[in-house]
Amino acid sequence: MPQSSSPLTLVVGTKNYSSWSLRPYLALAHTGQPFQEVVIQLGEPDSTEKILQHSPSARVPLLKHGELSIWDSLAICEYLAETFPEAHLWPEDKAARAVARSVTAEMHSGFMALRNHMSMNIRARKPGQGRAPGVAEDIARIQAIWKDCRSRFGQGGPFLFGKFSIADAFYAPVVTRFVTYGVELDAVCAAYRDAVLALPSLQKWTEAGKLEKPIAKYE
Amino acid sequence: MPQSSSPLTLVVGTKNYSSWSLRPYLALAHTGQPFQEVVIQLGEPDSTEKILQHSPSARVPLLKHGELSIWDSLAICEYLAETFPEAHLWPEDKAARAVARSVTAEMHSGFMALRNHMSMNIRARKPGQGRAPGVAEDIARIQAIWKDCRSRFGQGGPFLFGKFSIADAFYAPVVTRFVTYGVELDAVCAAYRDAVLALPSLQKWTEAGKLEKPIAKYE
Repeated sequence: MPQSSSPLTLVVGTKNYSSWSLRPYLALAHTGQPFQEVVIQLGEPDSTEKILQHSPSARVPLLKHGELSIWDSLAICEYLAETFPEAHLWPEDKAARAVARSVTAEMHSGFMALRNHMSMNIRARKPGQGRAPGVAEDIARIQAIWKDCRSRFGQGGPFLFGKFSIADAFYAPVVTRFVTYGVELDAVCAAYRDAVLALPSLQKWTEAGKLEKPIAKYE
Repeated sequence: MPQSSSPLTLVVGTKNYSSWSLRPYLALAHTGQPFQEVVIQLGEPDSTEKILQHSPSARVPLLKHGELSIWDSLAICEYLAETFPEAHLWPEDKAARAVARSVTAEMHSGFMALRNHMSMNIRARKPGQGRAPGVAEDIARIQAIWKDCRSRFGQGGPFLFGKFSIADAFYAPVVTRFVTYGVELDAVCAAYRDAVLALPSLQKWTEAGKLEKPIAKYE
């Protein structure tokens, strides 16, 4: 069993494109713990082989904590919340935490139209593109979630539940998509988007992504 | 904030087909808590309208606990694990719990080929059907997960982590699919399948599903 002080390594995919990887990265950065990073370039002939060296699911992200491997973006975030309780990765209020897990899990398993037609490409600017069937409904639902969380739980900070939480980590890739694809937002949602864009951890990830080589199938 | 003793209501879809609904039902049944059930017949012209009366995401399942609404199968299970700790819905060992969350989350967001081509239909028998591209890989990965969990954590009971956990609730719909579509399993996986099929809660759900009217698009 790893100790809290055991070394942490996060295995992620190409930062400009890997929305699944960004989420636990933001959560881990928020803990303030030192960690190593392994970035696997996706879309290469040997990408899957390289991922399989770390991850039994053949997917990124993966967290190594001492001898223990945890995979899947949400399972990693839950593990971090448990292991580093002082980071308060979930809201402290039980009802807020239940809703935070609801909106996080809704993102984890849903929004297929948005995911397929507005794939994450942080450094690109494609205003007006990606408006395929189902995308408008996904965008409307996301804005409804943001407004509901901000109005019910957003006291005490600019994030969905006031202070930063795993829910924000899960919606951060959507924030970058709304910038990339030029999605117009009302004032409440635009303010939330800007709060996420101002996260130093997201800015660091974005800068690293600018230096990566393009992957044709995601461009 | 609801008390543990506040009334619990689980809103689910047609039992024979709603794999997302089955999962929190099994977890809730395992707690031993009394609860009310609302079953919404899916595939009807007014199904979405009926769901929206309960659920902001327009999806089932949804759990009501006093005034609080929690949606999404995984968020509901996490909420039940927190609210009824004596049910031990997650493994008590931290490393086992991390892996249980990993395999649960992998099911929550993945296995699209299996989900699309072997949709849950508990009472049907369609041996040999559903073998579309990607399905064999999904089946192989699921068996690898089951065997890994059983060998590393399966002491103390017939389930993935020994005693029943949320991970079993999440793989129960797959167990019924393997029966419906006649998927052959090795001895370890067949024994696990049979342990899940023997759950009284799954048997009760299955019996109720036999009385429901067919939904054409899922048949």
